[in-house]
Formats: sequence, C-alpha cells, structure tokens
Amino acid sequence: MSLLHQLRRAPSTHSSPCRVSRSGKRVVRALSSNATSVDATAQSRARPRVVFSGIQPTGIPHLGNLLGALLNWVKLQRDAAPEDQLIYSIVGWHALTLPQDPKALSAARSDMLAVLLAVGLDPKRSIIFHQDENLHHAELAWILNCITPMGKLKRMTTWKSRLAASRNARDDSEVDESLLNAGLFTYPVLQAADILAYRATHVPVGEDQQQHIELCRDLAESFNRAYKGKRPLFPLPQHVITSSCRVLSLKDPSSKMSKSSPDLNSRILLTDTTAQVRSKIRGAVTDSTLGITYDPAARPGAANLLSILAACTGEEVTTLAERYADKGHGQLKADVAEAVEELIKGPRAEFERLRGEKQYLTSVAKEGAEKAGQLSEVTIREVRARIGLV
Amino acid sequence: MSLLHQLRRAPSTHSSPCRVSRSGKRVVRALSSNATSVDATAQSRARPRVVFSGIQPTGIPHLGNLLGALLNWVKLQRDAAPEDQLIYSIVGWHALTLPQDPKALSAARSDMLAVLLAVGLDPKRSIIFHQDENLHHAELAWILNCITPMGKLKRMTTWKSRLAASRNARDDSEVDESLLNAGLFTYPVLQAADILAYRATHVPVGEDQQQHIELCRDLAESFNRAYKGKRPLFPLPQHVITSSCRVLSLKDPSSKMSKSSPDLNSRILLTDTTAQVRSKIRGAVTDSTLGITYDPAARPGAANLLSILAACTGEEVTTLAERYADKGHGQLKADVAEAVEELIKGPRAEFERLRGEKQYLTSVAKEGAEKAGQLSEVTIREVRARIGLV
Repeated sequence: MSLLHQLRRAPSTHSSPCRVSRSGKRVVRALSSNATSVDATAQSRARPRVVFSGIQPTGIPHLGNLLGALLNWVKLQRDAAPEDQLIYSIVGWHALTLPQDPKALSAARSDMLAVLLAVGLDPKRSIIFHQDENLHHAELAWILNCITPMGKLKRMTTWKSRLAASRNARDDSEVDESLLNAGLFTYPVLQAADILAYRATHVPVGEDQQQHIELCRDLAESFNRAYKGKRPLFPLPQHVITSSCRVLSLKDPSSKMSKSSPDLNSRILLTDTTAQVRSKIRGAVTDSTLGITYDPAARPGAANLLSILAACTGEEVTTLAERYADKGHGQLKADVAEAVEELIKGPRAEFERLRGEKQYLTSVAKEGAEKAGQLSEVTIREVRARIGLV
Repeated sequence: MSLLHQLRRAPSTHSSPCRVSRSGKRVVRALSSNATSVDATAQSRARPRVVFSGIQPTGIPHLGNLLGALLNWVKLQRDAAPEDQLIYSIVGWHALTLPQDPKALSAARSDMLAVLLAVGLDPKRSIIFHQDENLHHAELAWILNCITPMGKLKRMTTWKSRLAASRNARDDSEVDESLLNAGLFTYPVLQAADILAYRATHVPVGEDQQQHIELCRDLAESFNRAYKGKRPLFPLPQHVITSSCRVLSLKDPSSKMSKSSPDLNSRILLTDTTAQVRSKIRGAVTDSTLGITYDPAARPGAANLLSILAACTGEEVTTLAERYADKGHGQLKADVAEAVEELIKGPRAEFERLRGEKQYLTSVAKEGAEKAGQLSEVTIREVRARIGLV
C-alpha cells in the first residue's frame, strides 16, 4: 500500500525513516531550545492547533518535496482534530527574492495549487491560498521589520550562505552583500509574518528552517513584550518536523534531491512518466558491493533507495533491508520504481487533469484567500490597535 | 494679507524666500542629475501631473512644517490644473521605524488628518488618506525590496546618520548597525512604494529627501527595465521643491526649527495661543547690532525673523529688510508675532474644532483610503501581471 493510499484510506502502524507516525506522538518534535523538554503533542492538544506552512511556486515538485513536505501536509490534514485549523500557502512573494521568469512563475504558481489539490489537500478542510492574495502578510511584515534588529537578520545562515555563494561565484573575496537584494535579507521577517498573521501554533517545515522559526518566536515575544494587552497577542509557534525523510539525489547521494541540480536524472518529478521513473531509478548511483544493506554512511545510494521504498510502502527500512539482503541492486531498483510509480500515479493523473481547470483553480484560490484574509484580519486588527495605528 | 489668506482668496505675485511662486514657473526644481536641464514645468504640463507627498503623524506641526510643507500642499492644490491628481498621505508605517507610544501615535495620526483639513486641503479635490489604510503600499514595498540592492540602502545618508547617532549615543566605536531595526534600514523602499503606487510624477518633499527620491527613480527604472510591457510602467518621479523656506529655531538659528529640540520656546506650534506666539517670538535669539539687515550668515536670528515675516505676508524679504532698516528688533518681533498669529489663527481654530469631530475625520479618512486604493489598484494589478504573480 502506498503512502498516498495510506493517507487516503486507512492509517498504518508501521514506521520508517520517511514516514509520519500515525499516532501523532512523534509528529511534533519541537526543535527550539525553549521547548525541547515539552511534550509538544500533549501541549498542542490542549487547545485547537493552528497549523501553518508554505511552499514556493518554483516548479513541479520532485519526490523529495512530496515525501518531505506535501504528503505530510496531507497526513496532518487527516490526523487533525476537528477544531484544528490547517493553513497552507503558496508563497509567491518569497519566490521574488531570486530572479524569476514572470511567465514561468505565473505558471508555477497555478501549477502548485493544482499539485496541492492533486496530492489530497481538501480545500473544504484546509485553507489553501496564494500568499500574494492576502496583503495582511505584507502589512505585518512591515510592522515586524520595525522590531527586527539588523543583527538577527545578518546572522541567518540562509543569508550568510547567499553571501558566501555570491563571493564564490565571482571568485572575488572583496565582493560584499551590496549586490544582493533587500528582499533576500528580510524574507525571514516576511516568513514570520506568514506564520504570525494566523497566530499559528505549529509550523511543519524542514529542519533547515529552524533558525527562521526561532526568529519568528523571537519576534512574537518582542511584540508581546512591547505591545502588551490583556494577554500576549502571539503564541510562540512550534517547529514541527513531520517526517525525518530526506530523499537524496539519485546521482549524488551525498546531497539532497534538489530542483536546482543540473542533472535531470538526479530527481523524479511528479509529472515523470512511468518510463521516466523506471529509467531514472535504474540509473541511480549505487555501489558494487554484493547484496543490500542499510548503511547510509558507507552505502548512501542503496540506503536512499531503501528509504524511498520504505516511505512509499510504509514498511520499516530495516525490515526491507533484511528482505533484500540477498538480492541485487537491480531487483531493489525495479521494486523502488514500482513503488514510486504507485505513489505518484494517482496524484500525477489528478494534477494533469486539474492544471487545465483554470477556472476551478481560480475559484479555489479565491475562496482560500478569503478564508485566510478573514482569519488574519482578526490578528491584524489587534496588531494595529496595539501599535497605535488606529 | 497672510499666506493662508492668499492661498484661500487671491494669489499674489510677490516673491520671497519662503513663498511658492504662483505661476508655477519655479515651483518645480528638479534636483535629480537626470533632470537638471529639463524645463520641468513645461514637461509637467505635458500631461496630467500626479503629485504625491506624505507626512509622518508625529505631533502637532510647528511653523517650519506649516511654511515648509503643509501650506505648500495647499498652494499646489490651488494651482493645480483640473486634470492633475493630488495625493497626500499620513504615513503611519514610517513612524514605526522609531519607538512610539501607541496612544500618542494614535492621537497624532488622527490629529494630523485634522491639521491637513484645517490648513485648507480639500478632501473633495485632493486625496487625503492614511498610508496604513492602503495595503498596496506594503505589497509594493515588498516587491521593490526584491529589486533593491543592499548597497543602495547602506549608502543612504539617513541610514548612515542613524548609525553614527547610535555609535555616539553609546560612546562606543565598536557598536554596529546590529541593534537598529530593519524598518529603519528599508524605509526608503517603502517611501518609493508610496510614490510609485500612484505612478506619481511629482513629489513635493524637503531637500533632505533628495537621495530617497533618487532611489525611487532608480527602482522605477530597474522595474521598468526588468519587467517590460508595452510601455514602461513607472514614470520617473521628479523631486519638487515647492519652497526654499527653511524656518530656523528661535533659540538657535544655526539649525532648523525642529520638534525634537528640548527647548519648547525654539518652535511655534499650530496650537500655540496668541500669548504663546508673542512670548516665543519676543524671546527669539537675535543680535545686538542696531537696525535690521537681511544677512543670514552674519545675523541668522534677524534673517530668520525676516524670512518668517516674508513667508507670512507674501512680501519680498529684501523689501522688508529695507522697511525695517532703521527699526529695532522689538518692532520686528512684534510685527512677526502679529503676522504669525494672523497666519495660524484660522487653521488653529479650525483644527481645535475638527480634532473633536472623530466621526467626520474617520469618514474623510475612509473615503480618502478608498480613492487612494482605487488608484493604486490599477498600478498594482499591472505590477502583479508583469512580475508573474497572477
């Protein structure tokens, strides 16, 4: 049974490196140092959770996006208590921090909405909307800018790595940040606004977002301290790691599967045909050791294939390793290809159907933006009142 | 006849250092190096002008604000061609870049609207609104952030002077910008958005804003170049110096009259009583030379009083200097006090009446924000289409 089938039909009790625990017990893993000892699940059940996450509209998602983020959003939707709010945003404004072709961006923006629906997010249950259609995000970002110390933004590793990349690219150690744009510098503040506009309590995003979530918590605390009311306005949102799944490149299993790799065979896209899926997995880098073992350090290629298979079938990766111990890479690859195909074929067909339904997509987006705007309006009214802009 | 009376009744043909030329010939003085040789007036008449300016809601305006900005806005309103658009904004979001007391900010925000109406801006002719009630400004600011190189913001003298002030205040040359907030760093981008949201062609603001207007022009050009359409989206706005009037402190005529001076007697507020006006001008710093001459370098106190008198009466400062050549400072001060009283008494009474009319002010603000939003909507729709967020 594929993960998608599990998500749609009956939950399984298996566990694998890439799977989301059904019970929810391990779903919330608070990363912030402020909350490490908290039983986050219990805390989160103490009141309705407000879950917020976002994804950039930058092309057809690959298997890493699906297993690492999108299918977990679907899982959260399925596991949520009736009173929980689920808010998923396509964050077009964030995409602007890097150069974009306007036509491609527009297409990707619409496609990403079709993807979210195709994988199983239900616009009747979850709020699904385009960030750029709720201007409260930009308003709150400005207000938060005014309580964000420059030093905090300069210490963001995302910023520092951009800076480093810019230096390397030019092979000139004198190059400074002057040419990078101010959007790239301040986007963690916009991200905080995305979250705080809904007073979100839980933010399921990748581990690499830990520092941004900490900034968001800092800003929430700063605001609460500077602008007191009957009670603190913002809850401190928790970073939620819904899955430890990290799908690696099929061509270089030392790095993540990434849309920016020049080698198209390094990733499987949602839109890949059955033949493409087979061919890419057949061409995945493994090693020449006989038999299969799960050893991510010594045998990253095989381990990656086992992880993908585990994520797709819902089995334990160790169980799978035992089953394949005496088999060859060819057999493993054939089974992974089949499992991946099984995982994506439904969403792929649904995506191909939906992406042409422009009118439907527009109406879903409109309704989502209205719902999101109604929620954030409650927050932003209180923000305006507290800061004195009324 | 006071400037205000001139503004409301009949235009005068006099000229003074503080007055706005009625003909409009010298009204537009393009400061940008791109436009110095342009007959800006002729150019501006070639199509309807869109005039945009803003003022922060940071307290009751003083005589410098009135003569240097607000009464010139009224003048522009009177002199505008019927097809010209006049857009005046109370820029609350900018005020957030420095610490504010929320209650005081809220009161100042409402009071500033009452001031604009009290001095003679007509909400039927000019669009008068609160910046924070038109979210397009924040949206466009984000978009412009993404095409603003960090280096340009770092070179803003306003930023550099804040940095210097922060260093001095702590008497620690190691203090860097880390503690200053990101709003202070990026507010020139918000200011550019304020202007470009209306595709303004003319921006009447102080000379100290020259660098910000140049940044605005740069961003307009960058956007036009990056996102081409049938025609460039943004006109390059011209910096308009409506008046060279620079009212100096009554206690230290080497510096501008300023609301931040600790000496309350250094400035005359719109709300000062007749007695306060007289007392403050009687106490103005002058010199002990007999007789009056207009010599700003050697005799700044007397020159300041002559300038104020000229601005209030509409006479030439040199004509006044001749008339007072044989008179004493006491006589000059008495006449200045009378002229200032004459200038402010109408707006003062109107302001005191209007500031209590909360409902009326709210309705004016609402209508203004609606009109502003309709205009900026046209711009922002085109912006979204060009960058691909549609």
